[in-house]
Amino acid sequence: MSWQEIAAEKKAHQLDSVPKEWLASGLPSTNDLNIIEFPRTVLSPLDIEITESTVSSLLSQLAEGKWSAVQVTTSFYKRAIIAQQLTNCLTEIFVDRALSRAKELDEHLEKTGTVAGPLHGLPISLKDQISIKGIDSTMGYVSWIGKPAEKNSVLVDILESLGAVPFVKTNVVQTLMWVETVNNIFGRTSNPYNRSLTSGGSSGGEGALVALKGSPLGVGSDMGGSIRIPSAFCGVYGFRPSFHRVPYAGCVNSLEGEDAVVSVLGPHCNSLDGIKLFYKSVLSKDPWLKDPLVIRKRWSEEEYNLVDHGNGGQLCFAIMWDNGLVVPDPPIKRGLEMTKNALLAAGHKVIDWTPYKQAEITETLQAIWDSGSYEDFRRAAAPEPVIESMRLLPEDTPLQIRPDKPSGMTAFDLWQVHKKRRDLRQEHAQLWEDSVSKTGTGRPVDAIICPAAPYVAPPHGFCTTPKYTMTFNLLDYPAMVIPVSHVDQQLDVKQPRSEFYTQDDREGYERYDPKIHEHAPIAIQVVGRTMEEEAVIAMSEVVDRALKAANA
Amino acid sequence: MSWQEIAAEKKAHQLDSVPKEWLASGLPSTNDLNIIEFPRTVLSPLDIEITESTVSSLLSQLAEGKWSAVQVTTSFYKRAIIAQQLTNCLTEIFVDRALSRAKELDEHLEKTGTVAGPLHGLPISLKDQISIKGIDSTMGYVSWIGKPAEKNSVLVDILESLGAVPFVKTNVVQTLMWVETVNNIFGRTSNPYNRSLTSGGSSGGEGALVALKGSPLGVGSDMGGSIRIPSAFCGVYGFRPSFHRVPYAGCVNSLEGEDAVVSVLGPHCNSLDGIKLFYKSVLSKDPWLKDPLVIRKRWSEEEYNLVDHGNGGQLCFAIMWDNGLVVPDPPIKRGLEMTKNALLAAGHKVIDWTPYKQAEITETLQAIWDSGSYEDFRRAAAPEPVIESMRLLPEDTPLQIRPDKPSGMTAFDLWQVHKKRRDLRQEHAQLWEDSVSKTGTGRPVDAIICPAAPYVAPPHGFCTTPKYTMTFNLLDYPAMVIPVSHVDQQLDVKQPRSEFYTQDDREGYERYDPKIHEHAPIAIQVVGRTMEEEAVIAMSEVVDRALKAANA
Repeated sequence: MSWQEIAAEKKAHQLDSVPKEWLASGLPSTNDLNIIEFPRTVLSPLDIEITESTVSSLLSQLAEGKWSAVQVTTSFYKRAIIAQQLTNCLTEIFVDRALSRAKELDEHLEKTGTVAGPLHGLPISLKDQISIKGIDSTMGYVSWIGKPAEKNSVLVDILESLGAVPFVKTNVVQTLMWVETVNNIFGRTSNPYNRSLTSGGSSGGEGALVALKGSPLGVGSDMGGSIRIPSAFCGVYGFRPSFHRVPYAGCVNSLEGEDAVVSVLGPHCNSLDGIKLFYKSVLSKDPWLKDPLVIRKRWSEEEYNLVDHGNGGQLCFAIMWDNGLVVPDPPIKRGLEMTKNALLAAGHKVIDWTPYKQAEITETLQAIWDSGSYEDFRRAAAPEPVIESMRLLPEDTPLQIRPDKPSGMTAFDLWQVHKKRRDLRQEHAQLWEDSVSKTGTGRPVDAIICPAAPYVAPPHGFCTTPKYTMTFNLLDYPAMVIPVSHVDQQLDVKQPRSEFYTQDDREGYERYDPKIHEHAPIAIQVVGRTMEEEAVIAMSEVVDRALKAANA
Repeated sequence: MSWQEIAAEKKAHQLDSVPKEWLASGLPSTNDLNIIEFPRTVLSPLDIEITESTVSSLLSQLAEGKWSAVQVTTSFYKRAIIAQQLTNCLTEIFVDRALSRAKELDEHLEKTGTVAGPLHGLPISLKDQISIKGIDSTMGYVSWIGKPAEKNSVLVDILESLGAVPFVKTNVVQTLMWVETVNNIFGRTSNPYNRSLTSGGSSGGEGALVALKGSPLGVGSDMGGSIRIPSAFCGVYGFRPSFHRVPYAGCVNSLEGEDAVVSVLGPHCNSLDGIKLFYKSVLSKDPWLKDPLVIRKRWSEEEYNLVDHGNGGQLCFAIMWDNGLVVPDPPIKRGLEMTKNALLAAGHKVIDWTPYKQAEITETLQAIWDSGSYEDFRRAAAPEPVIESMRLLPEDTPLQIRPDKPSGMTAFDLWQVHKKRRDLRQEHAQLWEDSVSKTGTGRPVDAIICPAAPYVAPPHGFCTTPKYTMTFNLLDYPAMVIPVSHVDQQLDVKQPRSEFYTQDDREGYERYDPKIHEHAPIAIQVVGRTMEEEAVIAMSEVVDRALKAANA
C-alpha cells in the first residue's frame, strides 16, 4: 500500500471503538464557525453537569461515589466524540480499555471504601506522543502506523497509579515542530471558537478538546510553545513546567537526543485547580525513580505559599508589552491592560519589563534545532514527505516537500551554540536579579507577564511567530497561559501605525482585522524563574483571581 | 616570545608574592618518595595544630576568636608552600589578596562580635579553572597566560559571602581531560605518599595539597573522575555531586557547550565534616539565583536523615567488586573487603552488585566527548601543542603532538549518541529499582560501593582507566571517595591469574607489584542515585564510621 492508502485506512477506523449512539447528528454546517456551545445542545443535563465541573469538584463527587468512574468517563467520551466531529481533535480512541479501567476503579471504591489515588476516576486526555501499551503513537507520521507501544510511558503508569483514566489521545502536527496542528493521517484540528482559525499547535488537539470540555484535564508537550500556544488560542489554562520535572520517558518524540532545549510535558485545563493537582500529584509519585532524567525535587508547599515572594503579600509583576520584534495586535494589548488594571486593583504593583535580546534568544534556539532537525524529520517521515507549510491547500495540490537541506552542523559547532545559550541564560538571570532596584518590594520582579503570541488565533497557516513562547524554552522559565477575554469587534479596532520593528511586524499589522478573529480567545503568559513551578502556579492564581474580581 | 618562553616566565614568577621565610629549606632529596610527614618536621607546633584540625574545629576556633583568620590563613599558606616545594601542586598564589581578606574578617568579628558567615575565616584552595577577579585562570594553557579574570566566578562570590578565604589555586592537566596532572606552564604534580606515582587528575593539585594538609578544604571539578581519582590516589575524601548543583558559572573549562555530560565542581577534604559543610553552605546561598543552570533545590535535612533509606536504620549496600573490564589490583580488593566486613560488623547488609553494560556506558561517554573535543583542545592550545601522553619523557624529547584528527561528528549523529545515553540511564535506573528483590530491606539497594580505579596510584603516565569513575558521570550519580587504608607489602601480594577480561586487564595485572605502589592510599567509592547528595553524604558517614570502628 502507498503511504496515502495506509493513512486513509487508519483514519477510516478511528471511530471503530465508539458506540454509534455517541455520535451527534444535526451537526452545525461547516460555515458555522463558532461551535463552542454546540455540545450543550445535544448532551443530557447530567452529561453537561459532569463535563462542566471543575477538576476538584469532579474528584469529590467521584470520591463520594455520587458519580461513578464509568459514568464520568462516559460523559467525557460523549463530549470528546462531539468535539472530534466538530474540530477533528482526536487521534486514538480506546473506549473498551478506558471503560474497563473505570470499572475497576468503581469496584475498588465499592470494595475498599477508599479512592485508588488522588485522581481517582478522572478521565485524562493525552497528546498522541504519550505512549500507552498496545496503542499506536503515530505522532502524525504515516510510517509509525501499526507499531503499537510495547509499554506505557512512565507518565501513563504514574497517572494510572494516581487513579486517572486515560481515555483518548489527541492530534498533533507532523514533526511536532510547528505551532499549528495538521498531519497526513488525522488531518487538521480547528479552533472551536472559530473554525476558520487554527487551534495552534503542536498540542492543538488538546487545546480544542479541553476548550470544548471534552476532557477535564489534558497533557500536552512544549518545546517552543506547543502547550501554551494552543491553550492561548483555544482559551484554556496551559502550563509549561521547567525541563525535567514531569517524566517524559517512554514517549515518542521529535529531535530525540537534542538535549539542550528539550520538550516538556504539562497540563491543559479549564481551571487552575486541575493544573496544580496534576503537577502536585505527579510529583508525589517520586517520578525520578522511574525516569532518571526527572529532577529529584518534591512538591514544595512552602514555595507554593510564596516563601520566596514575600509570603504572598504585595507582589510586583512586570509586563513585557512587546518583544521588540512584533508588536501585539489590539486584543492582546487589551488583555495585558485588563491584567494590569486587575492586579493594581487587587493591590499589587505592576512595572514594565524591557525585552532583552529577544532576537538572539530565539535565533539561538532555532539554530540548536536546525543543527539536526531536517535529518530527524526526513528519516522519521520517509517515504511520506515532510510537510513544508501550514497553509490550507486546494484539494488537488501535491504536498510540498521541504528541500533536501544539508544536515545541520558539526557537533563542535553545535557546542558553540550551546555556549551562546548558556551565556544568554546567565545574562537574563542577572537582569532579573537586577530588577530589585525597580520593584520597591525589596525583591526582584516576582513574575513577568507577557503575550503568548502577538495575535489571537490566526487563520490556518498564519501562525508564524512562536517567539513569545520560544524565548522561555531557551531560558527554561516555567510559564502559565491564562485566558483573559475574547475578541471584541468594538474594542479591538485596528489602530494606525507607521513604524515597524521587522517585516513580520509589518505583515502582521497589515493582516489584522478583528472580523477575521471573531470570538477568538485572548490570553496572557505568567512567567517565573527556572524551577519555580509552585510559585508560578500560586502567582497565576493571584492573577486569575484578580481578573475574575475585575470582571465581576 | 615563544610559548615556551612565556610559560617559563610565568613559572619563574609563581612564588613572587610568597614571603621568603615561608620557603622550607632542608627539603628531602628527590629520591625520598614518601614525603607526607615532612611538613610536620619544619612547621611550628601552632601551625601544625591549626593545619591538622578538622574543618568544624577550625571554624569553632575562628568563631571564638581563639585563632584569627590571618593566623589560620598564614599557617595554611606555610604548609601549602611546603606542599608546593614537595609535589608542585599549586598554580596561582596571591598572598596579599588573601591576607587582606582575612584581616577584614578579623576586623568584622572584632567589631560586630559575629562571624561573617558559616565559613568565617576558612582558607579554601581552588582548582585553577575557578576564576578569581584579577588572577589568571590558565588551566594549563600557555595561550591563556596574562588574561586575568574580569570577575569572580559565582562560586568564589558565594564562598566569600560565606566568610571563606580563597588563598591558592591548584594544578591541573592541560585540557583537563586526562586523569593525571601535568601541563607546560606549571609542570607535573606528584603523589605525596610516593613521588614516583601520579597524584591523579585533573584535580591532582588539590589531591596532593589537601593530602599534605596544605588546605583544609579544596574545590575540584569532575567530568569523568577528576575529583575522585586524585582523592583516591592521595588518600583524601572527595565528592562528585550531580550535574548542576554547585554553581559553575564564570569558571573556565574544556569542552564548553558539551551539555550532555558536564563537569561539576565539588570538594576535597581530610574529613567528611568539611564535605558536608561546603555543600550545605553553598546551597544555603540560593546559587540558582546567580547561576541559572543550578537546580533550584535547597539542602534537605530530611534527605540527610535518610528519609528515603529507612530513616538511617539498617542499610543495604551493594558492592561492585569489578566492572567486568579490568579486575582491581589486590589493594583495591582488600579495601572493598575491609569495607564489607566493617559494614557487616556495624549491622548493615552487604550484597553483590552485578556490573551492567560498563563498556557501553564508558564508550558512549567517550563518544560524546570525542564528537568535538579535538577541535576544542586544538583551538584552546594553539600555538602550543596538545599534550598527547602522560608518560614521563626524557628531558630533550620534543613534545608529542596529537595528530590532526578530523573534528568529530555531525550534530545529528551526536544526538543519536545522546539517545543512547538516555536509554542507558533509563535501563540503569530500572536495574536499581529492581534490586528491591535482593535486599531484604523492602527498599532497593541504598548505595553502591565500588573501586574509584582498578589500582592505587600508579607511576606517572600509567593512569589509563578512569572507567570506574566515568560510568557515574554518564549516569549522573553522586559519588564519594573514602580513604580506607594504604598498600601493605605483606597483605597485597600478587595472586596468580590466567583469565582476563580485556587487554587492559592483562597489562594491568602484569604490571602490578606492591613495591611499585609502596605507601599508596587505598580508597573506595560510595555511589547514590541522581541528586541524592544529602543521602550519599549521610551514607558515607555511615561507611566511614564503620571503617573507623573496625580499625579501632
